[in-house]
Amino acid sequence: MSYHRNPWKILDQEMIYENPWISVTEFQVLNPSGGKGIYGKVHFKHTAVGIIPLDREFNIYLVGQYRFPLNRFSWEIPEGGGNAEEEPLIAAKRELLEETGLVAGNWTRLFDMHLSNSVSDESAIIYLARELELHTAMPDETESLTLKKMSFDEAVGMLESGVITDSMSIAAIQHVQLLLLQGKLKN
Amino acid sequence: MSYHRNPWKILDQEMIYENPWISVTEFQVLNPSGGKGIYGKVHFKHTAVGIIPLDREFNIYLVGQYRFPLNRFSWEIPEGGGNAEEEPLIAAKRELLEETGLVAGNWTRLFDMHLSNSVSDESAIIYLARELELHTAMPDETESLTLKKMSFDEAVGMLESGVITDSMSIAAIQHVQLLLLQGKLKN
Repeated sequence: MSYHRNPWKILDQEMIYENPWISVTEFQVLNPSGGKGIYGKVHFKHTAVGIIPLDREFNIYLVGQYRFPLNRFSWEIPEGGGNAEEEPLIAAKRELLEETGLVAGNWTRLFDMHLSNSVSDESAIIYLARELELHTAMPDETESLTLKKMSFDEAVGMLESGVITDSMSIAAIQHVQLLLLQGKLKN
Repeated sequence: MSYHRNPWKILDQEMIYENPWISVTEFQVLNPSGGKGIYGKVHFKHTAVGIIPLDREFNIYLVGQYRFPLNRFSWEIPEGGGNAEEEPLIAAKRELLEETGLVAGNWTRLFDMHLSNSVSDESAIIYLARELELHTAMPDETESLTLKKMSFDEAVGMLESGVITDSMSIAAIQHVQLLLLQGKLKN
């Protein structure tokens, strides 16, 4: 179908910045109407993973942390970045254990998402983790996390009242809320 | 509460890149554990707006476009960026008209979200637009859009089958799906 053809033409490109997590490239382009312009793209080196840990009593675990780019505290589902050659599920298991101390016996990949596609290629995979066992959390040294176990309904309340603003957390909690309302999740 | 204190210390900072939409700054930091490191932050100059246009028969309008940063085509709710001093609702009305030709008589701000908070401060506001009247679409010259009217259920199917991957679209459609299941939306 015609809309699958890329209507952007790249005339030139220069990588402006790189660190271990992202690179920034400025492209000289012809836009879909043929006009000259620039496009600054942020490339993400890692795929993000987000995990909803839901126990038999429909409690979930949220982590709170101060998000440097927002300059504010944020309550979120456990999240992290996968390494380049790593299976995302391995990354999800590691991040869940590091941030919450939980090991899950049952994993479901719920959906994939692109977080910010006007500027970046960042993608994320959202997992549901069930059959939870509590071990010991081992947070990364760059993280300072607050862990909170609460009923799923309480987390829904935090979403509805605007306390939770993180895109991965919003989409993941809504998704599980829909599964519960549709009777698709068992204890 | 202690977790509201910013545990990151900024030692130095340098703006690396700027264009009309974003700027990229590298910060020399002490992380929450006191270790030295860097943080590359992408600042967004505009707040994004996303609009779910839902008519009396529960049809919605999606726009398809080739997303340059993803190098792929993406089906999404109408979205755009607000200008700096502009009310987000004004931006939402303009973007809806430009991309779909629709004028809505009733607007509800559903929720706010941060799209990619590990690297950027990008924020978005999601609106529900009802009492729709079809005028003439006036797409921006940098956009090449395909407009599609479909039943809300069909859009939910595109989400469940993984066709829709855009974070704002996923969260917005799931939000409306929850409102419909809970009987909170009328024709």
